[in-house]
Amino acid sequence: MNTIRLKIEYDGTDFAGWQRQPNGLAVQEVVENALAGVLGDAVRLHSSGRTDAGVHARGMVAHFQTERDLPMQAYCEGANGLLPSSVAIVAAEKAPNDFHARFDARGKWYRYSICNRRIRSPLDVRFSWHVRSPLDVEAMRRAASSLVGEHDFAAFRASGCAAVSTRREIFSVDLSEMGDIVSIDVRGSGFLRNMIRIIAGTLVEVGTGYRDGSDIPALLARPQRQKAGRTAPACGLCLMEVWY
Amino acid sequence: MNTIRLKIEYDGTDFAGWQRQPNGLAVQEVVENALAGVLGDAVRLHSSGRTDAGVHARGMVAHFQTERDLPMQAYCEGANGLLPSSVAIVAAEKAPNDFHARFDARGKWYRYSICNRRIRSPLDVRFSWHVRSPLDVEAMRRAASSLVGEHDFAAFRASGCAAVSTRREIFSVDLSEMGDIVSIDVRGSGFLRNMIRIIAGTLVEVGTGYRDGSDIPALLARPQRQKAGRTAPACGLCLMEVWY
Repeated sequence: MNTIRLKIEYDGTDFAGWQRQPNGLAVQEVVENALAGVLGDAVRLHSSGRTDAGVHARGMVAHFQTERDLPMQAYCEGANGLLPSSVAIVAAEKAPNDFHARFDARGKWYRYSICNRRIRSPLDVRFSWHVRSPLDVEAMRRAASSLVGEHDFAAFRASGCAAVSTRREIFSVDLSEMGDIVSIDVRGSGFLRNMIRIIAGTLVEVGTGYRDGSDIPALLARPQRQKAGRTAPACGLCLMEVWY
Repeated sequence: MNTIRLKIEYDGTDFAGWQRQPNGLAVQEVVENALAGVLGDAVRLHSSGRTDAGVHARGMVAHFQTERDLPMQAYCEGANGLLPSSVAIVAAEKAPNDFHARFDARGKWYRYSICNRRIRSPLDVRFSWHVRSPLDVEAMRRAASSLVGEHDFAAFRASGCAAVSTRREIFSVDLSEMGDIVSIDVRGSGFLRNMIRIIAGTLVEVGTGYRDGSDIPALLARPQRQKAGRTAPACGLCLMEVWY
């Protein structure tokens, strides 16, 4: 038995998310089908986690097991020939047989991108949230620093989130600007459903002056979802990297 | 009579180029239609130049004349509501009545983007040329420096190019790297048809070692199109700015 670990990049715009499901085309489904085309056998992918409909990835990690002994190029180059241009397997390697993409993940890096200018941008629309009001990035940076550390993030999760514990550790939140693009880079041990998008929505409310950044410690101490910000749109979010 | 100067951004992927034509949807056509919707009158746009099918722009400049006296927001905000998400008017201002977007242009900045890695990138595919072989960017930079100045660029134009004079001045050619993306920024007085794409194709041949960079001065001194490189794909090219 071989355990193969893949790194997968995708433009999530036209997908119903990572996870295979009855109501739309999922990234998992097209990758499993491409691998089956190369292997001549159905495979089941196990990913480091899900991404929602419209969310992108530069470094989704997933693994599968197979009896076959193909060279790694078969997965990278061969399978990519069977994938649409919006999805590619960018790395493939043999992993120990007990490797599990989800249970062994030690941390993840997500980037949330905002296009901050009055007029919408046709060149940035696929990969960023258009925010018209000028953002005070320094105020957002100060507010973001209160999120770093281990906290109860129950105020920052979608209502449908099924996680038993809502404690997570955020290693860092970095804000940077390049032209009109404001990027929020969040690194942490793991994330609740919609957590990064609610963090982005909350920080944007701080940046536009709608919310006081000093609110955040209270949101962590006495979590109430309705007191956090809106969920920022999926198109701005990208899973950059998963660590093991 | 009012002369209005517009700055237009577009994702050229799905367009048959800037110029209105019978064989496909042009950017000019959708912008003229949106302006007509706002003005209630047909308008004719005059641009700083054409872009080919699939080429993008952050800062195409065009002007039109109208008897009507609308506030500038009507063009930026009003017309944008009538445009597809792939096109936006990002600035509008009154110009002197003798302003002409094409004849008054004093220079242009184009960026050509290359995604330089073995595996194609779903997130960069719309806006870059995928080059698999590792590029020697330093060799490309040295070769590019021979292009700077006023030269006869007849070796760097499409066979269908109708320009009478093939002398042009290049102000600068700058190469930069960010992650897997190699950008070639070319600023000059004006460009022949496909000139930037043939420069990009030629520099990539230098970067992969297929061509010696010291060839370039001879290509300028004794121009022969077939001795220059291939025409790089349209998707990597973006008109960044036009100066007046």
